Amino acid sequence: QTQFERLKRNKLFELFVISVILISALLIGAKTYSLPPKVITATIILDYLITLFFVVEISIRFIAEPNKKHFFNNFWNVFDTLIVLVSLVPIENSELAVVGRLIRVFRVLRMVSIIPELRILLTSLVKALPQLGYVMLLMFIIFYIYAAIGSTLFETINPTLWGDIAISMLTLFRVMTFEDWTDVMYETMQVYSLSWIYFLSFIFLSAFAFLNMVIGIVVNVMEQ
Amino acid sequence: QTQFERLKRNKLFELFVISVILISALLIGAKTYSLPPKVITATIILDYLITLFFVVEISIRFIAEPNKKHFFNNFWNVFDTLIVLVSLVPIENSELAVVGRLIRVFRVLRMVSIIPELRILLTSLVKALPQLGYVMLLMFIIFYIYAAIGSTLFETINPTLWGDIAISMLTLFRVMTFEDWTDVMYETMQVYSLSWIYFLSFIFLSAFAFLNMVIGIVVNVMEQ
Amino acid sequence: QTQFERLKRNKLFELFVISVILISALLIGAKTYSLPPKVITATIILDYLITLFFVVEISIRFIAEPNKKHFFNNFWNVFDTLIVLVSLVPIENSELAVVGRLIRVFRVLRMVSIIPELRILLTSLVKALPQLGYVMLLMFIIFYIYAAIGSTLFETINPTLWGDIAISMLTLFRVMTFEDWTDVMYETMQVYSLSWIYFLSFIFLSAFAFLNMVIGIVVNVMEQ
Amino acid sequence: QTQFERLKRNKLFELFVISVILISALLIGAKTYSLPPKVITATIILDYLITLFFVVEISIRFIAEPNKKHFFNNFWNVFDTLIVLVSLVPIENSELAVVGRLIRVFRVLRMVSIIPELRILLTSLVKALPQLGYVMLLMFIIFYIYAAIGSTLFETINPTLWGDIAISMLTLFRVMTFEDWTDVMYETMQVYSLSWIYFLSFIFLSAFAFLNMVIGIVVNVMEQ
Ligand code: NA
Ligand code: NA
Repeated sequence: QTQFERLKRNKLFELFVISVILISALLIGAKTYSLPPKVITATIILDYLITLFFVVEISIRFIAEPNKKHFFNNFWNVFDTLIVLVSLVPIENSELAVVGRLIRVFRVLRMVSIIPELRILLTSLVKALPQLGYVMLLMFIIFYIYAAIGSTLFETINPTLWGDIAISMLTLFRVMTFEDWTDVMYETMQVYSLSWIYFLSFIFLSAFAFLNMVIGIVVNVMEQ
Repeated sequence: QTQFERLKRNKLFELFVISVILISALLIGAKTYSLPPKVITATIILDYLITLFFVVEISIRFIAEPNKKHFFNNFWNVFDTLIVLVSLVPIENSELAVVGRLIRVFRVLRMVSIIPELRILLTSLVKALPQLGYVMLLMFIIFYIYAAIGSTLFETINPTLWGDIAISMLTLFRVMTFEDWTDVMYETMQVYSLSWIYFLSFIFLSAFAFLNMVIGIVVNVMEQ
Repeated sequence: QTQFERLKRNKLFELFVISVILISALLIGAKTYSLPPKVITATIILDYLITLFFVVEISIRFIAEPNKKHFFNNFWNVFDTLIVLVSLVPIENSELAVVGRLIRVFRVLRMVSIIPELRILLTSLVKALPQLGYVMLLMFIIFYIYAAIGSTLFETINPTLWGDIAISMLTLFRVMTFEDWTDVMYETMQVYSLSWIYFLSFIFLSAFAFLNMVIGIVVNVMEQ
Repeated sequence: QTQFERLKRNKLFELFVISVILISALLIGAKTYSLPPKVITATIILDYLITLFFVVEISIRFIAEPNKKHFFNNFWNVFDTLIVLVSLVPIENSELAVVGRLIRVFRVLRMVSIIPELRILLTSLVKALPQLGYVMLLMFIIFYIYAAIGSTLFETINPTLWGDIAISMLTLFRVMTFEDWTDVMYETMQVYSLSWIYFLSFIFLSAFAFLNMVIGIVVNVMEQ
């Protein structure tokens, strides 16, 4: 068991596993690149060996746990077990099967199992989310009020963009990403020549709230 | 009264109120999603109960204030009272009524009344505004000078974009957001082949001033 | 003289001067907005009074300077004198005169003369420039190398975008601002299917260098 | 040798060398700008003299090294030698020769040899790369999972954008840069009206991961 753990923590072994998972993922992804069949076969076999390694690894962790009930209280134990179980399902040959594709997608997640830094990163990302909660609510209020005004004023101009409040919110998100936002604005300005006030004030408000959110996260991270 | 305050500060109650307001807002927004009528009726009743809760809450705050004149010196007291009063207006059934829509929009603002964190956020946003004042003035000067040059040189090329200084400033804001800015530039380059200097120098200047503004805010927030 | 200085430092007076300059600038800019002639006349008169104020102010500063030669060694003294002299030139009535427009543009710069904070901001902006020098050189090298490769490979595909190295650098700047960059890429991918490597590596390199520049400035500002 | 080193460290000499390299680079780049032939000849001669200077300089450094084997262990020694050797190759007159162009490109890199600050910058950029490693892996996982879903759902809608996982990843990168991303989304929404969830969740996830990466670098740089 100690030797097994040492192998798992070995940086070279980690690099080897990551490479195989990546190549295996890219192989499935890029059907068009024609590789020699031997390379493909080798990658598939290595991919299965890695899954086998994960089966052994998770089994050892399960056996080592004195209280079996506690094992599945740990999020990462559940995560790793699920990934390994799904990876064991044999992939059907039919290229179009949606299930087969999803299993392949799951296999990429084995990387999260092997790289401890990815777990730390994911944990810190999830921990940063609650800070965003109130700014997200504020953003929602800004979007909702502007969408209500937008769908009231501009519905007759372009129902595809301003049909109801939900669609207007999507259009406003588009404006926030600066995606062809002047096309949207010029269209409304032909009816209401002052509608640039609506768009500019929205851009300033949302950009200001977004900037504040980013700065808030930076300051929060700095303080730790 | 103490029990009432305790209820107001209860996190579960807050979550419940936020959920009802959000669902209520989304219900009005997305006319197209067909929900069972019972759910809609329940949401409308819950929404009115929350408004009732706000009426009681603001009344208690008003009664508790020893000097009634000071009550409306507080911005948030005025804000809450207005929101509650507007929420009490019954919504007409006619879907197109602009007044009805505005009342619904106001109802979303009850969230600012129930979530103290949103008030803190809004206060800090408003406090950050004066710092922007001088950079905004500098931005205005940059925009004004470039708009004056732009409307002088390019007016005959495309009057829709460069007709007068005001329209040119809008076009420059578009260029600053990188929204199809090369279309604007290529058009002018067919007449003045060196006009890329105008656009590139404007992008560098405004981006530099904007960056400086962001850094200024970050440093200012850090120092506190 | 002391009384004059006190007036100049008075915040209300500053606000008044800024307002008049801004209104005066907007009046000229937006020919289309029809304002009552009395308001226009009043603004023009106030605008001239402010210029007169600046003439008196700069004269007092010149008289107060014991060594007249040193007066024009100060950048801001030269700047203020120039602005005032140009503002004194009467604006011709012919709306199209380029000279008349430039004089109006110069008048906006009187704001830099009246607001000390704008001078501090401008000084700090200019001081931040040398730090950018080496990153700008690095950016130039990246742009130049990619432009050389781009104009060699893609010249025959689209001479308007890749005609020579100078035009290719402009196209690459466009790609860096994400402005319809996929149109440029898809066009080249029809001939060289792997040209996405060229575009993606350029975007990563330039974004990475740009990010590094921003972080460098932030860290530099923080240390002060 | 000391005198030679002093010349190399002289700021004025550095500025002169940078100017010649830049002008020489721009001369080749902008074929269209017609300059007097004398200026062109002068620049070419100066350019060769600078290469000669580099030859002498690298030779002195090589002679000064007591252990010749160690000389090529230093990355910058190898880099400088390569640049100088390539710069010595005479450029053929045929404008279209790809080799001639590549040699010219290499000549710009002599700037990295003469400016020590550029070396420090490049070293710090390369040192910052490993930090990005794990976030890049996370990004890859996000892209891969979304590309797998995207190519499964949208392949029949637009095979050019969603043909296989590799092409879908390119399309997702396009969406991440906000480049006409609504065109891509609206197209899929005509078949799957809820596909906006796919695009918005992708934008949020990737933007959040990117933001986290930037903040991570900032914090890391600050700590040093
Ligand atoms: Na864009
Ligand atoms: Na665009």
